[in-house]
Amino acid sequence: MKLPLGYRYAATYAGIRKDQRDDLGLILSEPPASAAAMFTRNRVQAAPVRLARTHLRGSGGVARAILVNAGNANCATRTEDRVALACCRALARALKFPAEQVLPASTGVIGVELDHRLIVRALPRLIEGLSPDRFQAVSHAMLTTDRGPKVAFGEVPLRRGAIHIAGMTKGAGMIHPQMATTLAFVLTDAVLSPARLRRSLAAAVERSYHRLSVDGDTSTNDTVLLLANGASGVRPAAQECLVFDEVLAWVMEDLAEKIARDGEGARKLITIRVLGARDDSQAACIARAIANSPLVKTAIAGSDPNWGRILSAAGNSGVVLDPSRVDIYVQGMLVCRAGVAARFAEHELKHLLDARECAIRFVIRGRGQGHARFWSCDLTEQYIRINASYRT
Amino acid sequence: MKLPLGYRYAATYAGIRKDQRDDLGLILSEPPASAAAMFTRNRVQAAPVRLARTHLRGSGGVARAILVNAGNANCATRTEDRVALACCRALARALKFPAEQVLPASTGVIGVELDHRLIVRALPRLIEGLSPDRFQAVSHAMLTTDRGPKVAFGEVPLRRGAIHIAGMTKGAGMIHPQMATTLAFVLTDAVLSPARLRRSLAAAVERSYHRLSVDGDTSTNDTVLLLANGASGVRPAAQECLVFDEVLAWVMEDLAEKIARDGEGARKLITIRVLGARDDSQAACIARAIANSPLVKTAIAGSDPNWGRILSAAGNSGVVLDPSRVDIYVQGMLVCRAGVAARFAEHELKHLLDARECAIRFVIRGRGQGHARFWSCDLTEQYIRINASYRT
Repeated sequence: MKLPLGYRYAATYAGIRKDQRDDLGLILSEPPASAAAMFTRNRVQAAPVRLARTHLRGSGGVARAILVNAGNANCATRTEDRVALACCRALARALKFPAEQVLPASTGVIGVELDHRLIVRALPRLIEGLSPDRFQAVSHAMLTTDRGPKVAFGEVPLRRGAIHIAGMTKGAGMIHPQMATTLAFVLTDAVLSPARLRRSLAAAVERSYHRLSVDGDTSTNDTVLLLANGASGVRPAAQECLVFDEVLAWVMEDLAEKIARDGEGARKLITIRVLGARDDSQAACIARAIANSPLVKTAIAGSDPNWGRILSAAGNSGVVLDPSRVDIYVQGMLVCRAGVAARFAEHELKHLLDARECAIRFVIRGRGQGHARFWSCDLTEQYIRINASYRT
Repeated sequence: MKLPLGYRYAATYAGIRKDQRDDLGLILSEPPASAAAMFTRNRVQAAPVRLARTHLRGSGGVARAILVNAGNANCATRTEDRVALACCRALARALKFPAEQVLPASTGVIGVELDHRLIVRALPRLIEGLSPDRFQAVSHAMLTTDRGPKVAFGEVPLRRGAIHIAGMTKGAGMIHPQMATTLAFVLTDAVLSPARLRRSLAAAVERSYHRLSVDGDTSTNDTVLLLANGASGVRPAAQECLVFDEVLAWVMEDLAEKIARDGEGARKLITIRVLGARDDSQAACIARAIANSPLVKTAIAGSDPNWGRILSAAGNSGVVLDPSRVDIYVQGMLVCRAGVAARFAEHELKHLLDARECAIRFVIRGRGQGHARFWSCDLTEQYIRINASYRT
C-alpha cells in the first residue's frame, strides 16, 4: 500500500526509557497540513495534551510536525509544561516554522520528571534521519507495553486521482485501554480544510476508538491526530467526501481492532455486536457494558460459555432492556434464546472458544434498528503480571 | 455478642451444588417482623428478587421467613418464577402463614434450571432443624466462592432496654462484587415500623454496600434484607432512632468491609478515603473511580506505589477536579503533593505496601466538606483463575 505523499519520518533512542529501543519519533509534513485532533476527556491532562490543543487553536488547525515520545507521559510533574514547550520550540527553531505548528504527544509513566534535554539533544539526529520511508520506525518508537506496532493503510480512488491514508497507533490496554494511553496518528495527502477534517475525524473516532472497550476511564495522555497535507493535489468533491470518510473510518477501525488484539496479556480478540437496540448509541452502550465486564473477559479467557454474565452485564448498561426479547450468540452458536438458556452443545462451544477470536452477538428482538460493533479482549493472568509491576 | 431475640435458623444440603456443603438456609422470625429490602438495579432481575419485592408489597412490609439457596441464581431460566413461588408456598404451607411472608433469595450460576423439588424435599428437615443458635450455619450455607462466612453484630443500649442486631452476608466479588451476587440479611429485635425500617436501611446501605467497589454493575440477584421483629419489646424513642441507625450502619459497614477483604483472589483490603470534595456524593464518586480501576488494583497487588494511576482514575470519575489541589497519601505517606510527585522513600513505601491492608487518602485542598470511605481489594492472578472457569 502506498504511503501518503509529502510526509517524512524519523525515530531515535533519546534515552527516555531504560531499555535501548527508539523512544522518540517525528512525523513531518512538507506542506503545512490541515490538522484535526481529539484528546482525552480525563480531568487530569498531561502537558503535551494541553499544549497540542493550544497549538491547534493558535495555528487555526495547521500543523507541520508531530513529535512523540514513549517512556514518560510528561504528566503530573513540576516541569511538564516547560518540558513540552521547550521540545516544540527547539524543533520549530531547527525546522524554521512556528512552534505552534508542532503537535506534541507523550506516553509512559505518570509523575516522573522528564528531562527535556534528552529530547532537545536528540533532535539534530532525528531531523538528520528524516526519510519518506521510515513510517514503520516511528510506529515502533511510540510503543510501550505493546507486543508490536499497529499500522493500517487505506486508499481512496477518486475521479481526480487517488488519496492515501496511513495510520499508526499504540496502546496495549485491556480493561481500560485508554489508561495505558492510546495514541493514534493518521496521515493523508488529501486536500481538506481543517473544519472538514474535524468532522471526518469525529465520525471515524465514533466508529473506532469509541468502540474499543472504552468506558470514559481515559488516560491523561490519549491523543488522536489527523493530518491532511494536500500533497496528492486531490480535493474530494462534495459527494466524494463520504467515500473518504468511509475509508478513513475503516483505517481507524483497523487500528482500534489491533489495539484490542494486542491487549495487555490478552490471548483473544473479542468482537461484540449488538443489534436491534433503539438507536446506535444505546447499542454501543450495551456493547460497552459487555466489553468492560471483567467476568465476561475472564470467562472468555477460560473458554467458559458463561452467557449469563453477558446478559447480566448488558442488564447493567443503563439501557432499558427486556431480557425476554434477548438472543445471545457466542461463536455463532445460539446460547440464550428469549432471555433463557438455549439448548447448545456446550462441549463443542468450549472447543470453539479456544480460538484466538471470540464473537459475541447480542440481538434484541423487535423493530429497533440500532447496532454497534465493539472490540475487547480476554482478561488473563498475564495482565496482572504486567500491571502489578509496571514501574519497577 | 447476644443474637437478636425471636429468630430461629436452619441450614441443610439440598443437593443444589455439586460439593456436599449446605446450600439451603432458613431464617424464621417467631413474631411477624417489619421488613425492609433493597434489591439489584440490574435490568435483568432474578425471579427471587422479583418475588421478594412482590411479597413485601403484598404483605405491607411484614415477613416471617427468609429462604436462601446457594449454587443456583434461579435467573434467566424458563421456570424461574414457578420455582421461586413453589418454594415459598411449600414453606408457608408447612409453617402455616401466608406465602407472601416468605422472602426468597438465591445466588449461584445464572441460566441453569433449578429443580424446585430439591428445595421442597429439603424443607421438612430444614424446619426440623430450626434452632435459635444456628445463625452461623445459615451464614455458611449462603456462600459461593467466599473463603469464609461474613457476620457482624451490634447492640444498641437504650433507656428502655437493649436492642440487638446481627447481620450475615456473602459475596467474594472483586472488581464488581455485585456481579458475583451480594446477599445480606440483617436481623434485629427492635420494635420498628416497616416505614421507619426502610429509612434506616437506605441510610445504612448508602454508607456500606454502596461504598464497596460498586459501579452500578450489580448482579441479577443482589438482595439486602432487614427484619425487625420487636422481640426485645424495645421501641426506640424518636431521639434514639439515630443511635439505632448508627449501630445498624456500623454493622453493615463491617459486613461490607468483610466482603472486600474476601474479594476473589484478593490478598489485600484497600480502604480509600476522599476528603475535601464539594459534597459526600462527589467524594464517593471519586473514591469509586479509584476503587474500580484495575490499574490501581494491580499496582497495589504488586506493592507498586504508582500514584499516577490513582490521580488518573480520579480524573475520570466525572467530578470536576483541579489536579493542582490534590494531595495523595498511600499507607500514610505523602506521594503526590498539589498534583505532582512528592519526595517519598519509594523503597520504604513498597515495603509498607506488602501489608494485608492498603490505605489510600485522596485530599482535595480547599473548603469542600464532602468525604467518603470506600472499600476495595487488589486484583491478582488468582482472580483470573477463579473466574476463568467458574462453571466448569
